[in-house]
Amino acid sequence: MSRATLAVDDLVAAARSGSHRAVARLITLVENDSPQLRPAMKALAPYAGHARLIGLTGSPGVGKSTTTSALVAAFRAQDLRVGVLAVDPSSPFSGGALLGDRIRLSDHALDPGVYVRSMATRGHLGGLAWAAPQALRVLDAAGCDVILIETVGVGQSEVEIAGMADTTVVLLAPGMGDGVQAAKAGILEVGDVFVVNKADRDGADATVRELRQMLTLGAAPAAGAWRAPVEKLVAASGSGLDEVLAALDKHWSWLASSGELAARRTRRASDEILALALGELRSRMGTLDDHALLASLASSVVAGSADPYSAADELVASVS
Amino acid sequence: MSRATLAVDDLVAAARSGSHRAVARLITLVENDSPQLRPAMKALAPYAGHARLIGLTGSPGVGKSTTTSALVAAFRAQDLRVGVLAVDPSSPFSGGALLGDRIRLSDHALDPGVYVRSMATRGHLGGLAWAAPQALRVLDAAGCDVILIETVGVGQSEVEIAGMADTTVVLLAPGMGDGVQAAKAGILEVGDVFVVNKADRDGADATVRELRQMLTLGAAPAAGAWRAPVEKLVAASGSGLDEVLAALDKHWSWLASSGELAARRTRRASDEILALALGELRSRMGTLDDHALLASLASSVVAGSADPYSAADELVASVS
Repeated sequence: MSRATLAVDDLVAAARSGSHRAVARLITLVENDSPQLRPAMKALAPYAGHARLIGLTGSPGVGKSTTTSALVAAFRAQDLRVGVLAVDPSSPFSGGALLGDRIRLSDHALDPGVYVRSMATRGHLGGLAWAAPQALRVLDAAGCDVILIETVGVGQSEVEIAGMADTTVVLLAPGMGDGVQAAKAGILEVGDVFVVNKADRDGADATVRELRQMLTLGAAPAAGAWRAPVEKLVAASGSGLDEVLAALDKHWSWLASSGELAARRTRRASDEILALALGELRSRMGTLDDHALLASLASSVVAGSADPYSAADELVASVS
Repeated sequence: MSRATLAVDDLVAAARSGSHRAVARLITLVENDSPQLRPAMKALAPYAGHARLIGLTGSPGVGKSTTTSALVAAFRAQDLRVGVLAVDPSSPFSGGALLGDRIRLSDHALDPGVYVRSMATRGHLGGLAWAAPQALRVLDAAGCDVILIETVGVGQSEVEIAGMADTTVVLLAPGMGDGVQAAKAGILEVGDVFVVNKADRDGADATVRELRQMLTLGAAPAAGAWRAPVEKLVAASGSGLDEVLAALDKHWSWLASSGELAARRTRRASDEILALALGELRSRMGTLDDHALLASLASSVVAGSADPYSAADELVASVS
């Protein structure tokens, strides 16, 4: 067994026995696409699959951080270990994201039962689809009972985040015209639980009504299908939090009893395997700069002496 | 020669001799990922590479459509054939986009020298990266001198659109806090020409100033590098249009003299070949539903009996 593998085994053991530092180092392996990542993921695999993954999504300003913090406190009160992965797909993949760890969720900074990690994924090969599932596996295998996945920053990756969670919570706030925005962004389809935060503001009831209307617009759901509830919340004061937690628990029970949990997790694993497989094949195809076959094919297409399909065939043959 | 190929050759000949209907049918082949697409692209390849591709990007509300329409009129006045490809990455890939063709750019609806096409790409395998270059090749080979590529809808694919153009125009409007948004979205780096539209509104000069400041923040550009100008425009009245056109021409000259045109086009061809090659490999990997290897690998990962890397290795081996 190589020294690297031994070190990874130590790291995994430390993470499993509660070391925040070991968890952080394992996620750094993901961020750096380290050669140690493979053995680490191999060592972590048997321990993953326990955590309940809850995605939080919504436009900037709806109070995602406050809601995340309130949920963390609630789950901690149930003595559950909680992980928070804050993903910023609009920021470059770099250490800059670490700053976020320090300024966010500071209420829980000293709680050994809470793991908080920010991750920026822009510009990374495969981006979010590649990095986030691996970071989630680290938190999961480290013993988190619940992991909250939160998007920070702008962008349309809400739908992508939803694809990584067992339960997706869509947050809205009154008077932001969010209903229409959500419909546009395809978020109505992916929300399992809708939460109108800042519900002490004017227009909260109208937003709830609007949302319920939009959610019932489509065809009647099949028997046994999940009907996404709309809950009101004031995350800053905790008002409505019990109802949100009850909705989350109800969805969790439904996931198990309907078989949807297994289906979602299989779909996720499939996405992850595909992302890794395509990443590997992509890396075999080289770049323009290393004067690989790709560069000469691209020149032929620009010159009009080859069409892109024939060029792609040649490239595929070269990695097959 | 097969009958399908003959039909494609006829279609290409008709498109090259000015038939709008033939151009539309060729782009429909792209949208449908038709089996005739390959022979069509092969037949079109020798004729492509003539058109000057100008991408227009900016937030909703900055006046992209009005600016596109003004630019079309200006290029038509120079007796150039103009194509417009309006891409909506946030809408499903379907015939619904066709409606857009009818309601947009109606000023030019009867002009045989103007080709307008909308395209929705969401949900399509490879999406924008796959479909748009092929639609552009059709317009290019059909004899367009200039092609305007415009994003419609919301989303962060501005940067992706920019990667398809020779010249990228970033549109902003006064008082939308767009400077900061643009910086966040990574748009400052991709803009070749910045246009502050609706420049008769309050705050236009401040927006221009803010933008110029942000553009000069980085390191001093190397000798011979392009310095993106910031122009004011009132697209609705045409005020400032001459200056915008002059900036576009200047960038076009710089592209040729600096060698950057060839570099950008080679990079684009490379991206296109890669998208096709990865699409082909992806399709060989099957889906969860067809009970392929992928499905059993995903189940193993969910069960913790395999790690995703080993699973990906097996999948790669199966298509290689």
